Amino acid sequence: MLDRTLVAKLREIVGDVYFREDKEALVAHSYDGTPMLQSLPDGVIYPKDTDQVAEIMKCLSRYRVPVVSRGSGSNLCGGTVPVQGGVVMVMHRMNRIVEVDPENLTATVQPGIVTAEFISHIESLGLFYPPDPSSMRISTIGGNIAECSGGLRGLKYGTTKDYVLGLEAVLANGEIIRTGGKLMKDVAGYDLTKLLIGSEGTLAIITEAVLKLVPPPKSKKTMLAMYKDLYGAARTVSRIIEAKIIPATLEFMDNPTIRVVDDFAKLGLPRDMEAILLIEQDGDREAVERDMESMRRICESELADRVEVAESREHAEKLLTARRSAFTALARLRPTTILEDATVPRSKIADMVLRINEIAIKHNVSIATFGHAGDGNLHPTATTDARDLDEVRRVEQAFEEIFEAAIELGGTITGEHGVGMVKAPFLEWKIGKSGIEVMRGIKQAFDPYNLLNPGKLFAKETRKRVVIDRG
Amino acid sequence: MLDRTLVAKLREIVGDVYFREDKEALVAHSYDGTPMLQSLPDGVIYPKDTDQVAEIMKCLSRYRVPVVSRGSGSNLCGGTVPVQGGVVMVMHRMNRIVEVDPENLTATVQPGIVTAEFISHIESLGLFYPPDPSSMRISTIGGNIAECSGGLRGLKYGTTKDYVLGLEAVLANGEIIRTGGKLMKDVAGYDLTKLLIGSEGTLAIITEAVLKLVPPPKSKKTMLAMYKDLYGAARTVSRIIEAKIIPATLEFMDNPTIRVVDDFAKLGLPRDMEAILLIEQDGDREAVERDMESMRRICESELADRVEVAESREHAEKLLTARRSAFTALARLRPTTILEDATVPRSKIADMVLRINEIAIKHNVSIATFGHAGDGNLHPTATTDARDLDEVRRVEQAFEEIFEAAIELGGTITGEHGVGMVKAPFLEWKIGKSGIEVMRGIKQAFDPYNLLNPGKLFAKETRKRVVIDRG
Repeated sequence: MLDRTLVAKLREIVGDVYFREDKEALVAHSYDGTPMLQSLPDGVIYPKDTDQVAEIMKCLSRYRVPVVSRGSGSNLCGGTVPVQGGVVMVMHRMNRIVEVDPENLTATVQPGIVTAEFISHIESLGLFYPPDPSSMRISTIGGNIAECSGGLRGLKYGTTKDYVLGLEAVLANGEIIRTGGKLMKDVAGYDLTKLLIGSEGTLAIITEAVLKLVPPPKSKKTMLAMYKDLYGAARTVSRIIEAKIIPATLEFMDNPTIRVVDDFAKLGLPRDMEAILLIEQDGDREAVERDMESMRRICESELADRVEVAESREHAEKLLTARRSAFTALARLRPTTILEDATVPRSKIADMVLRINEIAIKHNVSIATFGHAGDGNLHPTATTDARDLDEVRRVEQAFEEIFEAAIELGGTITGEHGVGMVKAPFLEWKIGKSGIEVMRGIKQAFDPYNLLNPGKLFAKETRKRVVIDRG
Repeated sequence: MLDRTLVAKLREIVGDVYFREDKEALVAHSYDGTPMLQSLPDGVIYPKDTDQVAEIMKCLSRYRVPVVSRGSGSNLCGGTVPVQGGVVMVMHRMNRIVEVDPENLTATVQPGIVTAEFISHIESLGLFYPPDPSSMRISTIGGNIAECSGGLRGLKYGTTKDYVLGLEAVLANGEIIRTGGKLMKDVAGYDLTKLLIGSEGTLAIITEAVLKLVPPPKSKKTMLAMYKDLYGAARTVSRIIEAKIIPATLEFMDNPTIRVVDDFAKLGLPRDMEAILLIEQDGDREAVERDMESMRRICESELADRVEVAESREHAEKLLTARRSAFTALARLRPTTILEDATVPRSKIADMVLRINEIAIKHNVSIATFGHAGDGNLHPTATTDARDLDEVRRVEQAFEEIFEAAIELGGTITGEHGVGMVKAPFLEWKIGKSGIEVMRGIKQAFDPYNLLNPGKLFAKETRKRVVIDRG
């Protein structure tokens, strides 16, 4: 329950209708896209501009009330669950495209705009914003920045961090900082822009962003390569890169994923394949043709059972949509879907998929794997039932071993989903005790009273590393 | 003078020959590429590996002795001048290419390797590392990382920060941290990799880096466009980008630069031109041809007096070398050369060049301007004489107004050279009081006793902003 004087002040700042304490609002903001996590906030606030955010933060910091800023809450790491109560700050009213500057190839946006809406506006101007997280029809740019979202085009084009040139943000104490700008180069002090990207709302509240746009590719082609041998698919990934081709998309689906996606999307995918690669190249027509031909030959020499080039843009879109629907399709199988994103060097993709399968069998759980093979970012996805406590425990155990395996293979516990609550107990496995200490120091410098999204990134206790029994 | 017990310990760690206190060593490491700055260290140490760096830091932090890590010291911001004495740590012995991994397109290197040597090794393997600071024949990769160096290919390919995937670094207390890895995606906690890049040796000592490599472009073409009208050149820059062409190189030289470069390189450049653009495109042959043709047409429609396409690779190299030699050529004119790198949004290039010229006239100083027009990164360069105190004062006054003008135009005080000592008094102009406070907090978190390159980035006093009299 919030102090009543504070509530009166907050209502004064945003207007009565934009501060809510009713049960409906509290429940609606007690969870996010992550299964099995819920915690009620004490209030929900909807600021309309940066000045309001600054005023709100001055009040909240005076009263030492935690705040969780959020867009659509589509994250999968418990990043916006208000575990310590306090106020949830919803950024949806701040959803304007402030400016598109064609001379500097930049767009200035507020954080609450939905990613797909922004992208479609940019494309209508003949420009291109590459980051395309699978959640883009609901996720916001602000959320993408907070989590440093990736997507299907990450291999060739990079992720959100590669497209943010400057930020306006409100600090815990209500002060406004501005970093970077419409500048391709800026080395004035520490790179606060990059530090805020992926900081999951724990360092500041992002209120505006200058994004980099690029010229759109002139053409694009899509193909599917289907394998009865998992290693053939994995070797194809490595050999494409070794051949110095960087495809726009290089996606992987394993057999269980192929089956459910086909049930869902009715594409007539061959259900007996061990792996499918979805490969796209974009760019100039001649280069695209040449790269596609080279990649087709690599697929065939690695004994792909079938290679199919999409004959039209519609056909290609259908294939891409199938891949994008993997999560949704898997989610239909059972009540609870837990999707992770262990990431390894791309040369270790096959090893990682095999380890995931071994681990799933060992714990008698069902895990399908798909993901961005080109950048080693896999999404092992467990379908389970939250009410079956024993099975959930086994799923969690399996994921712990999957994180451990990723680290062993030179990888990381999260490639694009963030740490949030879910992976906080494992962060030390990746960055070590000293790394955690440094990060805690940074957090302390920005937010001395731990008011910004508390309970995320840093765990009370690091999980003990298990010795994996591969017997 | 260092404590004798400490010296004995340091000698024990690295061996007698790799710790020096003789005058020659001290003087040789009392300055760097920046004019008019000098300060003697108390000792110079040459570690051979990460463990030695860690041991050294444990000793130095116990004795609270400052340390300045450096490569070749080619920076232009006073970044490696040991202003508070202490120990200079020279990284030249740690100059190995640890591994090139063609499957993951990464190279793992020690910091002391010379950039051009690294690049030529990578190119011999048929791969490409784009960052190409003009100093690359002497600068080291470690120095490039510390300053986040740019170069001529920044517009299309980005700068050093876009090619560092992971770091090993030693903290002030001697602990070793490892960030990132051979991973295209990693969002496990705050992005320490990017935070260390450009941190100018003030947060940690970089001991190893995983660098991203890319496939080399298949062909490249070079052309010069010469203008009697400065605005025609500037408009050309904007119109090329608006036409959705991102050239590999888009360099600018003003009339004073053209004259000295021609005196130096004997290229027969037309000495009556107000501006020359050096334009390169690389990529697939057909795309390069098409882009070059489009850019030639834009140059002509903006009334370029002459457009010259290099007819051979040798001719192109000569033109590029001419541009790279601008600093050297200018440095021959007078005893002291002060080169800055105010950066503006690329649409403001012409405004900025005109402001620089006005400011130079007002203060009766000689400033030539060249730089990376495509990314708005200009290098106004004053030729002066350090012994003429009155003129030096006027030069400094002019640069203050140039920084102010850059900020006014939405730019920054430094695009690729770093803050160091030289721009520390101006940092607040760009990032504000709150920005400085946050950065000081980060510094404090990494280096509580202020031992790592003290006296850099943060000024005792911020320079007062002048109101520019444009009358």
